[in-house]
Amino acid sequence: MAKKSYPLSKVYGLLEPGPVVLVSTAGGDRPDIMTLSWHTMIEFEPPLVGCVVSNRNHSFDLLRASGECVINIPTLDIAEQVVGCGNSSGADIDKFERFGLTPKPAKYVAAPLIEECYANLECRVADTTLVTPYCLFVLEVVQAWIDPAMKAPRTLHHLGHGNFMVAGERIKLKSKMK
Amino acid sequence: MAKKSYPLSKVYGLLEPGPVVLVSTAGGDRPDIMTLSWHTMIEFEPPLVGCVVSNRNHSFDLLRASGECVINIPTLDIAEQVVGCGNSSGADIDKFERFGLTPKPAKYVAAPLIEECYANLECRVADTTLVTPYCLFVLEVVQAWIDPAMKAPRTLHHLGHGNFMVAGERIKLKSKMK
Repeated sequence: MAKKSYPLSKVYGLLEPGPVVLVSTAGGDRPDIMTLSWHTMIEFEPPLVGCVVSNRNHSFDLLRASGECVINIPTLDIAEQVVGCGNSSGADIDKFERFGLTPKPAKYVAAPLIEECYANLECRVADTTLVTPYCLFVLEVVQAWIDPAMKAPRTLHHLGHGNFMVAGERIKLKSKMK
Repeated sequence: MAKKSYPLSKVYGLLEPGPVVLVSTAGGDRPDIMTLSWHTMIEFEPPLVGCVVSNRNHSFDLLRASGECVINIPTLDIAEQVVGCGNSSGADIDKFERFGLTPKPAKYVAAPLIEECYANLECRVADTTLVTPYCLFVLEVVQAWIDPAMKAPRTLHHLGHGNFMVAGERIKLKSKMK
């Protein structure tokens, strides 16, 4: 998969539909991956993303210590790995190895890109005000990558207890909204 | 549509997939509606939701003044109204009237439920710490309603510039995740 740099001004369109994402972090003994659905855009450009990372996760410690992560957007073809990453702890296993995912060096952060995801957003922690009360990190996307061949990604959308909605048809309506 | 009370413990499953929502507010001359995709779950129970409401919106003033709103989840059948609400201002028009949407009294808040939406979440503002820097309100869902006949809602997921993904097929994977 040959990824291309993607304009930061377009990043919101990747996260607004609400896909399950894989957050990769570095530090400790090895990089880690966590599965996450609790995210929202906060600003268009530079893109700010709010992510709730439970402090019961090994990734919470890595994210807080390193101040960096990558938000990777997976599709249906790696759904088993997405669930696997959500049901195990990086304190116990190397998730890249266990789930056959490929770490690639990022441009600006130590956390690795997950090659098998169609988009990768390199992030730095921008605001920790709400980390203590809600585990909510404000992240700034500093570099985005996308597989330009992916036109209608079959993203996963979590419904709870292993149930997912898969991205369906696309429609276009007349709108002035960004 | 005869709606039923819905357990607060299950609310996360309605918002995690990332649907476009209609936020209704009360106060001023008339209730207002805004279209919004920038939301995330923050806590399971009581359900806390982070919502970014731009201060360029009329609804921002109503939400801040009243401290209450309803998060209504629309489906494909009212897509035109969803876009209409996003392309107009409640400072100029009565959106319920203009778009043929029906306001129903809520149980705990002054903001009206939108009858045509399959789920309605009555909310109170719980934390305004990040309103000034990011327009991010932390809302607590105090009452949820759902149309029990709606099994696989065709929710809308915004991709930008009038493009939407419509909720597609559902899959079930073995998972210990909530």
